[in-house]
Amino acid sequence: MKTLRDYFPILTWGRHYGRQSLSDDLLAAVIVTIMLIPQSLAYALLAGLPPEAGLYASIVPIILYAVFGTSRALAVGPVAVVSLMTAAAIGAIAEQGSMGYGVAALTLAFLSGAILILMGVLRLGFIANFLSHPVIAGFITASGILIATSQASHILGVSAGGHTLPEMLTALIRALPQVNWITLVIGLSATGFLFWVRRGLKPLLRRMGIGARAADIVTKAGPVLAVVATTVAVWGLGLDAQGVRIVGAVPQGLPPLTLPSFSPDLIGLLIVPAALISIIGFVESVSVAQTLAAKRRQRIDPDQELIGLGAANMGAAFTGGMPVTGGFARSVVNFDAGAATAAAGAFTAVGLAVAAIALTPLIFYLPIATLAATIIVAVLSLVDLGILRRAWAYSRADFLAVAATILATLVMGVEVGVSTGVILSVALHLYKTSRPHVAEVGLVPGTQHFRNILRHEVQTDPAVLTLRIDESLYFANARFLEDYLADRVTPDCDLRHVILMCSAVNEIDLSALESLEAIAHRLDTMGIALHLSEVKGPVMDRLRGTDFLAHLTGRVFLSQHDAWQALRG
Amino acid sequence: MKTLRDYFPILTWGRHYGRQSLSDDLLAAVIVTIMLIPQSLAYALLAGLPPEAGLYASIVPIILYAVFGTSRALAVGPVAVVSLMTAAAIGAIAEQGSMGYGVAALTLAFLSGAILILMGVLRLGFIANFLSHPVIAGFITASGILIATSQASHILGVSAGGHTLPEMLTALIRALPQVNWITLVIGLSATGFLFWVRRGLKPLLRRMGIGARAADIVTKAGPVLAVVATTVAVWGLGLDAQGVRIVGAVPQGLPPLTLPSFSPDLIGLLIVPAALISIIGFVESVSVAQTLAAKRRQRIDPDQELIGLGAANMGAAFTGGMPVTGGFARSVVNFDAGAATAAAGAFTAVGLAVAAIALTPLIFYLPIATLAATIIVAVLSLVDLGILRRAWAYSRADFLAVAATILATLVMGVEVGVSTGVILSVALHLYKTSRPHVAEVGLVPGTQHFRNILRHEVQTDPAVLTLRIDESLYFANARFLEDYLADRVTPDCDLRHVILMCSAVNEIDLSALESLEAIAHRLDTMGIALHLSEVKGPVMDRLRGTDFLAHLTGRVFLSQHDAWQALRG
Repeated sequence: MKTLRDYFPILTWGRHYGRQSLSDDLLAAVIVTIMLIPQSLAYALLAGLPPEAGLYASIVPIILYAVFGTSRALAVGPVAVVSLMTAAAIGAIAEQGSMGYGVAALTLAFLSGAILILMGVLRLGFIANFLSHPVIAGFITASGILIATSQASHILGVSAGGHTLPEMLTALIRALPQVNWITLVIGLSATGFLFWVRRGLKPLLRRMGIGARAADIVTKAGPVLAVVATTVAVWGLGLDAQGVRIVGAVPQGLPPLTLPSFSPDLIGLLIVPAALISIIGFVESVSVAQTLAAKRRQRIDPDQELIGLGAANMGAAFTGGMPVTGGFARSVVNFDAGAATAAAGAFTAVGLAVAAIALTPLIFYLPIATLAATIIVAVLSLVDLGILRRAWAYSRADFLAVAATILATLVMGVEVGVSTGVILSVALHLYKTSRPHVAEVGLVPGTQHFRNILRHEVQTDPAVLTLRIDESLYFANARFLEDYLADRVTPDCDLRHVILMCSAVNEIDLSALESLEAIAHRLDTMGIALHLSEVKGPVMDRLRGTDFLAHLTGRVFLSQHDAWQALRG
Repeated sequence: MKTLRDYFPILTWGRHYGRQSLSDDLLAAVIVTIMLIPQSLAYALLAGLPPEAGLYASIVPIILYAVFGTSRALAVGPVAVVSLMTAAAIGAIAEQGSMGYGVAALTLAFLSGAILILMGVLRLGFIANFLSHPVIAGFITASGILIATSQASHILGVSAGGHTLPEMLTALIRALPQVNWITLVIGLSATGFLFWVRRGLKPLLRRMGIGARAADIVTKAGPVLAVVATTVAVWGLGLDAQGVRIVGAVPQGLPPLTLPSFSPDLIGLLIVPAALISIIGFVESVSVAQTLAAKRRQRIDPDQELIGLGAANMGAAFTGGMPVTGGFARSVVNFDAGAATAAAGAFTAVGLAVAAIALTPLIFYLPIATLAATIIVAVLSLVDLGILRRAWAYSRADFLAVAATILATLVMGVEVGVSTGVILSVALHLYKTSRPHVAEVGLVPGTQHFRNILRHEVQTDPAVLTLRIDESLYFANARFLEDYLADRVTPDCDLRHVILMCSAVNEIDLSALESLEAIAHRLDTMGIALHLSEVKGPVMDRLRGTDFLAHLTGRVFLSQHDAWQALRG
């Protein structure tokens, strides 16, 4: 039975909340807030939304996650991959910058929240397990490439759209003659500076004798420095008049109360993207949360996480936000900065609310190119093409799944990409199980252990054929087994007994049971008895409920060794 | 390597064709022809096509199958379930009786043929294995109910459409006031007579001293008797003037040369139904062919069957036909009548061609109700609701798949029905494998055999925990295993060694490998070593290619007994 405390994790940590936790959480919140201001604006830009949407999506959602979520360090808000998926989903149905575009984003967040909560209530968190590690790695890598490419136009100061790599590249090349050189200088400087901050600044500060913690904070504040420097440059030199695109007027104030659209048409168009965003967001978030929880020997509850993330998205939908999830970078920063409880998230929300009220006039002159630079630097760390090599070295099936995911994502977009990865990895798994490995086994001398006659020196008997079937027997391989035995067992030999060694058979379904009956019947007409050995408890329970055992021409042996001793000539 | 003879099975049996085969085949052809004339007309009616389409679909396709197919007894032509699926597919896009309707049927046959041939060339016959026995049984049962219901309107002499059971029943009830009583009398008499022929006539003839073969032929000719009697009655009494619907003018002559439409729009609309028809038709046909081949110790080649059936459908597309496949009833009749080779099919085609040329004027007055009666009697033998009980008794998952297939087919139509069945049975299988059974095992005293400690009296050791994982380790259960071990293994006990007994692990994919690494690392921090035992050859080959074994804190043992002897205190 779940208790109220399972549904409201805040009740657990809230009871013991003390001064130490408070000071840890406050410090973490300051650091994360500084990091999140430019990041939130940037991801709103990536999703095609006005910059304030990113700030709003980081305020109420964080508080709701703090109430319902089980991770103590997860920082919820707009993240790169989900923002890219949001742009792809909405871009297909509304004009960027239009009224409908913003409402569609709210609706997407609402649907995503509803799907996550429903999955949580129905305890469907296991669905995320069908995204294999290689598929996730491939999808994130391809998304990172897409995101970086999409931001290249802002660095160049041109307008270029597209949701796939070929579209984006074509648009970029076409737009090249319109390059705004001042924007390019700002964009490249910001990008170079941020890369340097990420790679070179912290070691430099440490060498200068600055403490690890302080060096870390300065490093995280790097994007803020870039924002301040470029904003001041544009303002001071009047570069906006030279065609440098700037953020412009951002409404000043707390997040507004907004309503998503409940139009059935819009819901129909957005429900599939919303489901994909929910699952991808959930997988990303849960991976981060589990990694961080394990470091402190805490546990997270994936089904309750669904509810926490669902509530966060619902919050985003009603407060002018966009789809959110637990982000990798921000959560790690939160964790490293010492966040002790989810209250750190709530304090971050307060910090961002203050920013939304007080700081928005200051970013009027912030160049879009700077935001693009922060995105590019953030996402390029996600790109890991080495997964292709590692998968190839391990297995062709894993490689095929990764390669197809990357290719489909780049060429056909995020939705097709992730679907391709999941469907292909499931299909490859099913294909493998539909043609199981079957080994003829014999006794390893001096033991009671039986192994493949082709790999080990073993004893066999011409009257007894023992086949170890290396797969559960179910509809997809039922006919394969029939065909295999028909090919393998011919009437004209000394063979009297066929033993199916079932140590690897974890299930026999109704289709396979019918095939076993057909096999037993066929062997019987050749004067050969069919035996089973090492049938597992759960499988045996099921067979006992049928008349298969009554009709079986042979016996069922507890161990293969028993069978061998009873049947050999 | 496949030889020419594999692609043209006719070359194999044609070389040894002799007088005995010829006389056997001729007799079988006569019997099948008599049976097929009314059946072909009836299935065309079921598909919503003019009656001659059924005859045409039984001429050229049979000959093409004789050339390319591997079964010696399979009789190809329109069958009930495929005709129903044809009606559902075309009914959605064209008005019955319109020019477009007939062309759509040709296009559907063409697409179906193309898909079958493609699957054959790519050796994709295994796809059919994903239709589990219970799903097929459920689908055929529900289709039988739909077909019988669809024909009820012809027995009542009313017009009522619909592609789902609720639609059909509503239309029938609405149409009840228009019942044509004379049609109803003809329809009920024909139905009653045919049921009696099927159930009671053969025993009666046998009791009267008539030989088994002759009694059989008379029984198969029952539908022809009903056709002759009701046609004569309508003609003699002028019942068509009383509102009894009759077949009317049927073109006299050989099948015409026709062209399917290659319009991309039409192909787009029909490609999914064509794929479903292909797979369902292939599964039905292959099941029949394999059953019959097994009785004579012949083999059929499923991939070549795809090509044979594909060629038959191509033939139907270009000669005024409709989608065809190997039918159960007609093939069994062909087999029982002694057909020795596929030449019997060719002779049947000649018989039907003669019928198309000479007999069509004679069926002008044939009442539609009689054809409906032959369909109803034929399909009710397909209905087997007992599959629900048998599946329930065996496993809830199988039951769920059957019940959902039946319900979805009845309520949402054939395409949704069969898709639901396949998707649900695959999903249930994946769900089961994503939460594998894990047993703690101990040594069965006096043996080297290890079994579940909860089911057997076994020896254990507090320092050694052996877990037998009853499933291949792959992405869907990788995280489950991590969670399971985190719950199961706690630091505060005497435990020093965890052995994963891998006798049931047929695969470890890249996701699972990463999980195993995480598990080994976690156990290591608790001072517990992770060992593997009974790793199979193919799995071990793959692990050897990685650095997992190098980092493993424990060892890999050939047998669980070796591990036990080495590690117990």
